[in-house]
Amino acid sequence: MATPHEPKQDRSRVTRQRLLEATIDCLAETGWTGATVSTVAERAGVSRGAAQHHFPTREELIAAALEYMFDNRMDMSKAEQILIREIPPGAVRTHAVVKALVESYTSPFFKAALQVWTHATTDPVLRERIVPLEAHFGRIAHRRAVEGLGVDDSDPVAHHLVQATLDLARGLGLADVLTDDSARRKQIIDQWSKTLHLALEGTMLAKKEAPQED
Amino acid sequence: MATPHEPKQDRSRVTRQRLLEATIDCLAETGWTGATVSTVAERAGVSRGAAQHHFPTREELIAAALEYMFDNRMDMSKAEQILIREIPPGAVRTHAVVKALVESYTSPFFKAALQVWTHATTDPVLRERIVPLEAHFGRIAHRRAVEGLGVDDSDPVAHHLVQATLDLARGLGLADVLTDDSARRKQIIDQWSKTLHLALEGTMLAKKEAPQED
Repeated sequence: MATPHEPKQDRSRVTRQRLLEATIDCLAETGWTGATVSTVAERAGVSRGAAQHHFPTREELIAAALEYMFDNRMDMSKAEQILIREIPPGAVRTHAVVKALVESYTSPFFKAALQVWTHATTDPVLRERIVPLEAHFGRIAHRRAVEGLGVDDSDPVAHHLVQATLDLARGLGLADVLTDDSARRKQIIDQWSKTLHLALEGTMLAKKEAPQED
Repeated sequence: MATPHEPKQDRSRVTRQRLLEATIDCLAETGWTGATVSTVAERAGVSRGAAQHHFPTREELIAAALEYMFDNRMDMSKAEQILIREIPPGAVRTHAVVKALVESYTSPFFKAALQVWTHATTDPVLRERIVPLEAHFGRIAHRRAVEGLGVDDSDPVAHHLVQATLDLARGLGLADVLTDDSARRKQIIDQWSKTLHLALEGTMLAKKEAPQED
């Protein structure tokens, strides 16, 4: 089944992946200034020419690295979602969903992405490139949270509580970049989960009590 | 009452303030790389020597700018606190406190501070300098929120809900750096205020129903 082209395509894919992983490492260790196409190529052990063949500009490299980080985070959370679906709906499941969500914002990916977002505030070209990506990521993360919590997203209260949970997760991610905030974070996750569970239960009860249309 | 030293001290204070304001502008417009003692001095119209007299190192300048931003944010919120105290305790007051809190995280100060935090993740000298500052700011912001909400901070549920509200505010701040998130933010503020109010009311009711020791 193999064609003569496959090995070359494989090599190209491996090179691309090595460049993206090196980008994330450079961002996390040396920040935005340390993540140029040249430094990334050197770290990945790829020639500058080959790196530029994959990513002609720094913006393309950074945008591709953001997508790669997001896809990885989502793949990890896919595995978690499978585990979460085993838990019957209720307070325990809500806690598991909130915990998984928050932890995805304290990963090294978040710290690398923070370098990009922060730089983009002063770089309009980069900003224009990553704003649509971030909007897309936000929609997927929201959908995953809705599925995990098993709520009706067309209910505005549920919709806004899910959004608030994602905002909280982002805030907890930012609180963890300079010091290890894990002990405090655990308490916030526990409390938020309880409060969220009660509030979401309220939306479901309200729905049951409302007159049915069917 | 004036002494011959006062005008000189005044000049010195004005110079210091101009340097700090120029630091914030430089951080917000050009990011970390654009905020050196030289560029800040130039922007402030102060000689490099005078700037270095006030701030011998870049870390000292940045740390002082963080303190200046925080003090300003707190002064603004002091004015708001006075207005908030006019509102009788209840859902309306909770909403006003949450709104004021969140808005303080979407100010230009937050955006300038974000440049510092993000850079500090890859700069241990800066990090060591600002971590104690941030811990101090966090304690003050928490106390202000507790006073505004009028809750008993020794109650662990109330304590963690106040912390979660500050974490949510930080997350909403970060969501606003690349695009104008104000319309969505308003909805999140409205929903979380309601949920928080009910949850805090629950802690107060629980206390009333609990056996009194006196």
